[in-house]
Parts: sequence; C-alpha cells; structure tokens
Amino acid sequence: MAKTGSSTRKENFANTKRHVTSYDVALHAGVSQSAVSRCFKPGASVSKKMRERVMTAVKEMGYTPNAIARGLITRRSNMVAVIVSNLNFYPEVVSELSARFTERGVHVLLFTLDHESDVSRTLERVWQYQVDGVIAAAHFSPDEIVTFEERNVPLVFYNRSYEDIPVSSVSCDQVGGERALINRLTKSGQHKSYAIITGPADSVVSMQRTQGAIDRLHESGVTDVTQVTGDYGYKSGRRAVQEIIELRGSAPDAIICANDMMAFGAMDELRFHLEYDVPGDVSVVGFDGVRAASWSSFDLATVAQPVESMTEAAVSMLMDRVDDQSLPPEKRVFSGVLRDGSSVRN
Amino acid sequence: MAKTGSSTRKENFANTKRHVTSYDVALHAGVSQSAVSRCFKPGASVSKKMRERVMTAVKEMGYTPNAIARGLITRRSNMVAVIVSNLNFYPEVVSELSARFTERGVHVLLFTLDHESDVSRTLERVWQYQVDGVIAAAHFSPDEIVTFEERNVPLVFYNRSYEDIPVSSVSCDQVGGERALINRLTKSGQHKSYAIITGPADSVVSMQRTQGAIDRLHESGVTDVTQVTGDYGYKSGRRAVQEIIELRGSAPDAIICANDMMAFGAMDELRFHLEYDVPGDVSVVGFDGVRAASWSSFDLATVAQPVESMTEAAVSMLMDRVDDQSLPPEKRVFSGVLRDGSSVRN
Repeated sequence: MAKTGSSTRKENFANTKRHVTSYDVALHAGVSQSAVSRCFKPGASVSKKMRERVMTAVKEMGYTPNAIARGLITRRSNMVAVIVSNLNFYPEVVSELSARFTERGVHVLLFTLDHESDVSRTLERVWQYQVDGVIAAAHFSPDEIVTFEERNVPLVFYNRSYEDIPVSSVSCDQVGGERALINRLTKSGQHKSYAIITGPADSVVSMQRTQGAIDRLHESGVTDVTQVTGDYGYKSGRRAVQEIIELRGSAPDAIICANDMMAFGAMDELRFHLEYDVPGDVSVVGFDGVRAASWSSFDLATVAQPVESMTEAAVSMLMDRVDDQSLPPEKRVFSGVLRDGSSVRN
Repeated sequence: MAKTGSSTRKENFANTKRHVTSYDVALHAGVSQSAVSRCFKPGASVSKKMRERVMTAVKEMGYTPNAIARGLITRRSNMVAVIVSNLNFYPEVVSELSARFTERGVHVLLFTLDHESDVSRTLERVWQYQVDGVIAAAHFSPDEIVTFEERNVPLVFYNRSYEDIPVSSVSCDQVGGERALINRLTKSGQHKSYAIITGPADSVVSMQRTQGAIDRLHESGVTDVTQVTGDYGYKSGRRAVQEIIELRGSAPDAIICANDMMAFGAMDELRFHLEYDVPGDVSVVGFDGVRAASWSSFDLATVAQPVESMTEAAVSMLMDRVDDQSLPPEKRVFSGVLRDGSSVRN
C-alpha cells in the first residue's frame, strides 16, 4: 500500500522519538528553528506565508509547543507548587486551588507531606522545578520561609498565619469564629460546664481557636473548663471524650472541638458508646464546616470556612506576586460563617 | 561597610534575576557552562579540581540545578500527570499516588475535571507539559485513549477499565465485591425485597457494580428489585430513598448503594426523616470503604477497595512503561475486602 512521504515520516517520528521538537518541525518545513519559535511566541513578527508553511509542518508532524521550554526562555514555568500537610483534611481546598490555577493557564505540582519534618526535603524538590510560586497549607520554620525570599519565589500560606514574620497568608478568623460559637452556646443559659478538645500541640490554628474559646468563656464568667488534646482525627475525638469524662467524673454541658472531624468522633462516642444524648445531655460544636457537618447524622453546629473566597484570594495574591515581585506581603483574614445545628441544645 | 566581591555579586543576582542559571555559575567560576553541567550529570567525567571550583561558585551563588532543563536533555521531565474527575471522591488515592511518586523522585502535576467534558481541554494542557506518563481516574473516549499511543505517553487508568481497548488499568473487582455483599444479605434469610441505588448513568464502575448485584440476586432467586439512579453524592442517596418508597409504596428489606456516600445519605434519610430503623426495618450496604464507613454513626457494611495495593500497582505499572515503552498494556484487578457492619441485620 502506497503512503505519502509525509505520513511515513510522521510515523517514523512517532515510533523512534519521544517528542517532536521545534527542530524537527523546522527541518521538515525547511525553515530555521527560530522561525518555528516565533510562530508560537505571542506578538512575535512572522509573515503570513511563513506561518502557513510552519503550521502545515506542525500539523503533519503532530508537534505541540513545549510549555516547559518556553518557560526556560521567559523564566516562567507556569507551574506553581501546592504543599499540603494532609490531603485528607484539604480535598476541597486542593480541588478549588487546582481549578482556579487552571483557569489562569497555570499548573499545579502537588506535594503532600506525611510528616511535618518532610518540609526541608520537599522544598529541595520544589526548587528543582523552579516553580513560579508556592501555596503552602503546612507549617514552615522561619528559616524555611526566608529561603523563599532569597530565591525570589513568592509564597502564600493557606489557613496558616505567622504574626511576626512578613509573609503573605490567607486565613480564617479563628478567634472570631470561636467567639461566635461560644456566644451560641452561652446565650441559651443551658451550658455551665465546658470541655475543649484541641488539635495537635504544634498546630498554630488549634492554638488560636483554643485561646479564642477560652478567652470568650472567661469573659462570659465561665470557669469550669476542661482541656484535652486531640490530633484532628475522628478517633482522637472519641478518645478525648473518654479522657474528659475520666478527668471530670461526668460529662460537661458542652464540648468545643477544634475541628469538625473530632466533633464527629466526640458525638459518636457520646451517643453510641457512652449512651449520652446529644444535645440533650451534651452539646457539641466543631470548626471548618466540612460536608459531613450538614449530614443528618451530625447536623453539627460549626463555623464554615469560606473556602471559595479563601482559595480565590490565595491564587490571586500569589499570581499578583509572580507578576510583580515588589509587592509587599499581605495577610488576608476571612470571617467564618456560623452554621447552626441540632448538636447544640437551645 | 566593606563587602567581599562575591557576596555583593550574589546579592545583585538575587535582586535582579529570577533564578541563577548554570551560565551564571560558569561566569562566576570562570569555567565553561558545559563544565558546570557535567558536575550535575551522573557519571560525567569531571576533575576533582574542576568540581571543587564549580561547587564553590554554586554555593556562593545559591544555584540549584534545573530539573526541567535536565529533562529537556534526557527527554524525561520526571513529571507525571494525575487526572481525577472529582477530588472529593479521591483524596486518599491522590495522597497515596503523590507519596509513591515522590519516593521515586517523580513529581505530580494534578488536574481535576469539573465536568467529564473538560477532558479534551485538559489533555491539550497535559501535552504541553510533556509529562512522562499519565494516571487517570476519569473517563476518556476511545479516541482520547488513542492519542496517548500516538504520542508515546504511557497511560494507566485508576479504577476504570476498558474491556475492548488495549490500555493499562488498575481496578477493583466490582462484580466480585457486589457478589460478596449480596451473599452477606441473602445468607441471613432476612431480606426478600431489594432496591439498588446506582451511580450516574455514564459511570462504567456503577454499571459493573449494579449488574454484578442484579445477576447475583437473580441467581439467588430474588425477583423483587427496584432500581433508581443517584449521582454518587450524599444528597442523591437521600432523594433516591424517597423515590424508592414512592415507587414501591413501602421500604424494601435492603438497599444496595453503588457507593458509600450515597449509603450515608440513604441511612440518614431512613433514620432521621422517614423514621425507619436501620437495620431493623431496612438493611443498607455501600461500596468503597471510605473512612466514614467505620464511624459509629454508620458502621456501614461495604466492600473496601485496597487503596494501598491499587495505588502501588498503578505507580509501578506506569513507571515500568516510562522506562520501557514496548511493554504491552496490562489490566490488574484487585479484590475488594468485605467489611461487615451493623447496617445489615442478621
């Protein structure tokens, strides 16, 4: 069966080479490689005839301009790194970030950390990819933050903020959220004794939430507050309830959990294992507003983080700083939205 | 204040340039760029003296070898794309894949699709990054699958399999899993009437699960089966239960849900809105084995997908094909593990 020269050629390329390069196209079209490049460079001058000649070769060869090679010329990779400490807590956030970067033609290199101690190893890898910027939902040391400045790589923290370090961040008003939750609990006059289940000891977010709750309770004249530590996970919420009851001898009127996941564990332990009624015997509140909070099994009173506004802010702050590195760091704090639920008695 | 020449120079670079390149290092060290390159190329010959000279400059300039530029030389980018249709269903999977690629020094470009129709636009972007391979937890058309072959880019489907198309995939034995669930339901002799809540009509996985359940029910002599359609989401599970009861006039003995998320919705609708007892009046089973299935609120009988084995298989199959593109496509099917729960009566 007879084949045309060009189709045979294309097949040979497909079989023997990984990718068709601009040099291959130039050879095929009988033009210079720089002429091929110009055809893919916005605003570059190319004659109509030259463009047709190149585009015919491009089509025949199945060539796709290499975004990475273009990045080497412009010193922009059009890639950003998203570093998250635990994807299970952030599926919606990563999904939203990914969609928003994609809209802008920017791609996401995803890094997940098993342990916070992986940060320095992960950063070594991030540098190798010369990303245009980084969004981090993980804890960095002050020294690690400084390396971003030294390398001129813009950095925006998501749901982490560093009070004394000039670095950009988007976060939720943890203290304001806890105050709203405590107001919800105290206004009914039903809750005299309280327990708090905190997140892990090294979590700044947990510290802010816990301190916000304690301060507001003290302002309200509440002194009976038991505090135990969890790890943000469901099981730790269950264990924490056991610990609270051991410490106090009985259940408190209300349990304040530093996130929703632990609140689910606390509710399940109370209802199914210790046979307390929620909210009849014990009210439970969470923080974050994850999907399951609105499921009928829980109907959890919580503060919902405005994930859409926060991810949009993080992405636009980062891209603004990629475009103009002289922009100063900025901290943006969004108020959460109180979501009432039947996990609190009136 | 006096400064040494080299430290001033470093600062200038940091202020005026985005990244220090191998050319900058060569200039600073007074050697050729290719000498700098050789210092970072495994196995390349470099004298000890030259290496020291280059490494001093590297340190002084804060240079990191550019993985992407190295990729252009080796025609390997050390990046793979992971394409998922809905990250909310796959947080654990993406997390596991990311960790396993990272162990191998390979980085993950993450693409999430809002709609299945985004596939072709997403693939255009994937080609631009010249990734070494792709893992897809999304539905591709046969034509889209063929383009991978044409471009010599290895592709492995995750939890999707295409019976008549020679393409690699890792999946869970959907039919076997449903058979195990039906056996669990029928052995007690408690369940005579059934309803099935399927996933969306275009989901191959849902079709396989549903057909597996129906076939096994028929084999067991069950003829009373009502089938309604959901969309894999919690709310659709709730709506589906309403629809089942409207269609039948009363609840069936058991409801088989094509995934866990819909089973949670079904259980909540039955218990909290229609005041049926689960499992007293109605037994409910799911599929997937997500975390919340083991929460006391649900304690859902389901089939757990072996996520660790499946992600490890997907990553090693992909990397084997990146190393040797002549390897034939392979379909690997893992059996799920029956997880019993109190959502089924004995």
